[in-house]
Formats: sequence, structure tokens, C-alpha cells
Amino acid sequence: VSFFRSRWVERPPHVSEAEPTALPGGFRAGAAAAGIEPNGALDVGVLVSDEPETTSAARFTASGLLGAPVLVSRQGALDQLRAVVANSGNANVADGERGLGTARAAQGEAAERLGVPREQVGLASTGVVGRELPRDLLVAGVRAAIDTLGDDTDGLCQAILTTDKSPKRACVDVALPSGRVRVAAQAKGAGMLEPRFATMFCFLETDAAVSAETLDLLCGVTVARSFERTSVDGQLSTSDTVFFLANGTSGVRVEPESADELALGEAIDALLRQLAIEMLADGEGASRVGRIVVRGGADAVEPVARAVANSPLVKTALYGADPNFGRILQAAGMALTGYEPFAVDLDVEGRTLVSGGAAVDQDEASWRALEEAVKAPEVEYELTLPGEGGETEVFFSDLTHDYVTLNAEYTT
Amino acid sequence: VSFFRSRWVERPPHVSEAEPTALPGGFRAGAAAAGIEPNGALDVGVLVSDEPETTSAARFTASGLLGAPVLVSRQGALDQLRAVVANSGNANVADGERGLGTARAAQGEAAERLGVPREQVGLASTGVVGRELPRDLLVAGVRAAIDTLGDDTDGLCQAILTTDKSPKRACVDVALPSGRVRVAAQAKGAGMLEPRFATMFCFLETDAAVSAETLDLLCGVTVARSFERTSVDGQLSTSDTVFFLANGTSGVRVEPESADELALGEAIDALLRQLAIEMLADGEGASRVGRIVVRGGADAVEPVARAVANSPLVKTALYGADPNFGRILQAAGMALTGYEPFAVDLDVEGRTLVSGGAAVDQDEASWRALEEAVKAPEVEYELTLPGEGGETEVFFSDLTHDYVTLNAEYTT
Repeated sequence: VSFFRSRWVERPPHVSEAEPTALPGGFRAGAAAAGIEPNGALDVGVLVSDEPETTSAARFTASGLLGAPVLVSRQGALDQLRAVVANSGNANVADGERGLGTARAAQGEAAERLGVPREQVGLASTGVVGRELPRDLLVAGVRAAIDTLGDDTDGLCQAILTTDKSPKRACVDVALPSGRVRVAAQAKGAGMLEPRFATMFCFLETDAAVSAETLDLLCGVTVARSFERTSVDGQLSTSDTVFFLANGTSGVRVEPESADELALGEAIDALLRQLAIEMLADGEGASRVGRIVVRGGADAVEPVARAVANSPLVKTALYGADPNFGRILQAAGMALTGYEPFAVDLDVEGRTLVSGGAAVDQDEASWRALEEAVKAPEVEYELTLPGEGGETEVFFSDLTHDYVTLNAEYTT
Repeated sequence: VSFFRSRWVERPPHVSEAEPTALPGGFRAGAAAAGIEPNGALDVGVLVSDEPETTSAARFTASGLLGAPVLVSRQGALDQLRAVVANSGNANVADGERGLGTARAAQGEAAERLGVPREQVGLASTGVVGRELPRDLLVAGVRAAIDTLGDDTDGLCQAILTTDKSPKRACVDVALPSGRVRVAAQAKGAGMLEPRFATMFCFLETDAAVSAETLDLLCGVTVARSFERTSVDGQLSTSDTVFFLANGTSGVRVEPESADELALGEAIDALLRQLAIEMLADGEGASRVGRIVVRGGADAVEPVARAVANSPLVKTALYGADPNFGRILQAAGMALTGYEPFAVDLDVEGRTLVSGGAAVDQDEASWRALEEAVKAPEVEYELTLPGEGGETEVFFSDLTHDYVTLNAEYTT
């Protein structure tokens, strides 16, 4: 099965898939079971680039409530990170000075063992909020994870999972005009996931030589088209973190605004979009992924797409395989206060169900075909508003019994 | 059992409860089973004031997508309504000119039979969106409901229910300084319920003599403190409608800015707040009602309270009786992008769990008492943000398996 499974993501022709847990040259990863997760699972991961001239870029959650690892990472050298320390089982949020101290202790331990300055170590923690993250366990876990460093990311991928059902990773070889480079990425995310990307991590490595400025640009653009276009439950996390690292060991240099940059960007774009959709398909309790495309007035499309993607009525209808276009209209109307006349068009799976704001009568055969189409794992809605200049998309998971079970019964 | 059951609503001392389905003098109500609801339930209700000098006030949903009954009602004489026609089973939304024609037909039929101008008949429909409301059934239902007009609202209350488990109504006698008046109200609402009030109806009648201006003021103020402070699922409906009618048959005149106005306002306020909380307690699948109080900076309190009340993570924790303060903080943080430091205090059921942004360690006994407290039918959260001048509250229901079942399996 190809990594690029979604109907909404195409593998670019210059991209070929490698072993999903492989790494580009000069990167190593390791993991340990530190006892932060109660069940003996791997819960601390370390990623390192052995190349001193590594460049990096980072993005963090936009929440006003930030985890200690985000606060400490932001004070570091985000354009020249050499290593990442990640853990699951505890997000280290709302624990005051104690939490900040623990994040710094993990950062310091990794820096010392790896022989890099502490400000070149990025941090990422995920799990329960508002509980003490045991400092001794984390620091010992960092040591143990570093002892296992190797050229496979499987342990790292396992160590960052929380409610995820399965690891999310890929490794691809990319034929740039100037030569072949490799890009790998490891991600997690299943719930507390929305907009300005949410409890999700994505660590991306490449052996291309990319300036920090160009890497930051690529990071911003591809995150904006992937993790920022998804929602499981409309909930922005305290801990979302994306790190891109480029170490140049391939000898292929990607110059700004070059054909190489474009080709590398296309590869990363496909990789991140598929990873983002994986998070939705693995969204807490999710059974289906929807895509809402909204076209129309430039100011209107974004709030409407978000309102539809986050409507529990739309999401339960997606779960129930109900082509309930009334709820799409209702959710859109909610974001369009004072917007008259409400002359919208709505297509579901390519069938026009609403035209000029009024329902279009369907014959029995058309309705039955539609009922079949919305049972698929991926369902598409296209909404056209009056006005021009705007077009956006949001991917979203459905709202299921298992979401309620997961979130009513477990403390996260 | 008193109508004023919630811990958050007090019966004012000058208010006494009458038979809940009674009406003030000069009002009559009726209902019929018109076959719009498939199961033979009452589905069309009519309310009428026999007094030609009746004043009225109205409020409608703020959605950009408006039901035909809202569009037609808004063109009427909203300050001198004499009658209301309501139906369940079909909201008459997104049916274009045909839907508008059906709303006008029902209005015309009621006007003719009751001998009042058509612009003095308000309309309200609730139920499925995007399907044709059968005009013949509705018009025949209006006729049949008018044939049953009497001094009891039970039929009317039944006729407006959709997913509501039980009717919501009250009738109270109010001792104003200038004399005794009566106020009755009938409401519906269980899902698609949020902010600027949502698929909810509330029809309120009083035999006080109140100018249209004063009634409008009372309507605006009391709706703002009740239906606009509640959320089941954050979903604004296409059809929310509030009608206040005052017919003066008591002979007690309520002058603007008088002690009578204040006393009447207090009575209506308590009535509407209890009705709003009833809607939450009867929210689709709801098992508990929460109240989030937010104090702090004037601009911050409202988005934070809404973010908490609408968070599926907070709502599933309420369902699971989990005093999960981390999710309250996370939801608040989502509404406070760029807000640092995040020095908030959080009390749950009177216990301080977070102070200055950091969790406060609880001893075992305190934690156990808290776990008991959050199992109650009503749970209170108080969040204090930095800054001053703002204070607000939002009431919300929990997110349960039954919400998912109701909304995945039924087309609404």
C-alpha cells in the first residue's frame, strides 16, 4: 500500500517511497520506555543530526496556554537545532516553574550526552495536562534513548503516540533537478486537533542542504496547507510542535527560488498533507474523513469552512453516512450572520443538492447513489458562496461513539 | 417540585407559581395533529390574544440562513402581534419561493380564521431542514388547531417539541407594586442550540399592559441573560424565535423605568433563565449541565467562556464526571492566542485547582470530594483571567453517547 493513500493527495512523479522508518544520511533516532506512560510503552524519543551545520525551522501551537517544552524550545536556536527530545504520557503543561525546570533538565541532559549546545535541542511533550511530569524519569529516559540511537525511526514514532492507533511516518527519495535527496517525517496526532495545528508533532528530516530561511519558508507553506487545514474536534492543543531539520549530507544544495526548492516543496507538501489526513483518519474514534471546499467571497470562505468542519451536527451526520445537506447549510449560515440572501450552492460527492439557496429535488436513483457515496472512507463537500476571490478547504473527521468513550473515560 | 429547580435560578419573592399550562386572561391556545410529524403527534399549535390592543416583541436567530417563517414574520407588525402559528416536523428552510409561499399560506389562514390582519400573525417552524413542508397539511393543521382554542397550553407545548424529551412551560403570578399580573411561557429546544439563541422557541404571554417599546426592552434584556447564555452543541439554528405578547387585560399598566417594570423584568428573567437551563438539561442526550463563569479583561471573558462551553473535550469530561481542569485551561488557551503569561485561576465546585496558571496540589480527601461534586446534575466552573472589567457566564450541556446516537441516526 502506498503511503499516499488519500484521494486528496497525489505522489509527485519525482518522489519515490523508501522504507517508512528510514532516515536521511547523518540523522539518528532512538527511544526508551521511561515509565512516564504507565504501561511500559516507549515514551521518550530522541532525534539527532550528526552534522554541525544543520539548519532548522519550527512551528508551535498558537494557544495562549503553552506547554513548558514549547516555552523552553522557543528560547532556543530554532534555526540551528541539532536534536529533538520528545515524550508522551505527560504534556508538562500548567506546572509552573517546576515544569519549566523539568523541560530544561531534559534539554540539558540531551545536550551534554550529544555534545551540542543546549539551545540547539528542541523539546516536545504530549499527554495529560496539569500533572507533574516526573523529572527523574524523563532525564533517565533521555539517557536511555540516546543509548539506542540508530538509523531507524520506529522507536521514536512509537514513543510519541498517545491516543493514536498507529504510528505515522514516511520516508521518500526525491529527485531534485540538482540531485537526489531524502526526506523523512514522523508524526503523531489523533485528538485535541484543530486550526493553527494541534496536539500533533511532526519531525521532518532531510539530507538536502537548505538555508534556515528557505527551510522556514518551506515549513510555513507546507504546514499551512496540511496540519492547519485539519480538525478532529476544533480543539487547539497546548503542545503542537513541528521541527524541520536539514543537514546537507547529500551534498545537494537547494537554493532559494530555484527549481530544486519547488521540487523539494512539492515533496514535503505531499508528505505533510498525507500525514495530516492520517491524523484525521486516526482521529479519536474516527471512522470517516470529510473535506469541505468553500469558494466565494474572500472574507467568508475561511469562517464558513471552519464552521462546517467543526459542527458536531455535520460530524455526526458524516458518521451516520447521512447526506444531510441541511446541516452543512445550517453550519455555514452560523458563520454568515446578516448575510442575505443566502444564495449558496452545495455539491456533495459531485451531486448538486442545493442551488441558489434552495434544495434541488433528487430522483430516487440519484439519492441512492449519494447514500452509497457518503459511506466511503473519504467524503467531499463543495460549497459555493456569493462573491469571488476566496477558496479554501478543511479536512475533518467524524464524531463517533468512540470519540465520546475515549474522552469521557480517559483523562487526557 | 418547583419550576425553579436549578441552583442557578432563584424564584423572586414576588413570584408565585400557577398551573404550568395556564394562560393569562385574554389568551387562548390550541393544537392539532396535522400529519407533518410522521407519528401522529401534535405538530401544529396556535396562540392568540383576543385583545385588539395587544403589544408584542420578537427576537430571531442571527444565522445567515433563515427559515421561511422567520423571513415572513420579520416582514410583519412585530410590535403588535395578535397570534402565533407554530409547527414541528419541518423547519421550512432552504425551500426557496415555495417555502415562503407555504409560510404565507399558514399566516393567511390563521389571520382569516381569527379575524386579525395577516401581518399580526407570527410564524415559527422547527424540524428537518431542506425538505418541502407540505402546504396543505400545515394549512389544515392551522384550521384544526384554531378549532381547539382554549385556556390551556398543553397542546401547544406538545406541538412544538422535536427531540425534546418533555415540554417546557411555566405560568406564574407576579405581585407588582401596582397590582397582580400573570406571565406564562412555552418553549422548546434540545439541540442545534447556541449563542445568539438557537433552535429554540419561546412564546411568552402576560396580561400586564406594557408598551411595545418596554416589552421590546424586557425581551432583549431577558433573552440576553437566558437563551443567549446557553449552548448544547455550539450550533446556531435557522429558526430560533422568541415572541412576547402583552394584552393588558389585568388592568395593571407597567410604565417605563418604574418599579413595576423592574419587578416584571425580574419575574421574566427568572422564568427565561430556568427555561434556558431546562433546554440544556434536556439537551440532546444530555446528562449534566455545566456553568462556566469567567472574570477578567472585558474583551477576553466572552470568547473564553464560549470556547470552554463548546469544547467537546470539556463536554465529554463533564459527561464522564471527570474534574479534568486541564481541558478547561486548554479550551481557554485556545481563545487567548498570544496571551502571555497565562496566569489564570480556576475553581471547580468552589475548589481552587489552578492558581496563577499552575496546578494546585490537592490532597486525597479534597480530590475525592471534588470527584463526588462533579457527579451532580449541575457543575460549576469559575475561571479568573488577568485584567478587569469583564464577567460573563455560559451554561452548557455535556456531550454523551446519546448525542451521537441521536444525531448520527436521525435526519434533522
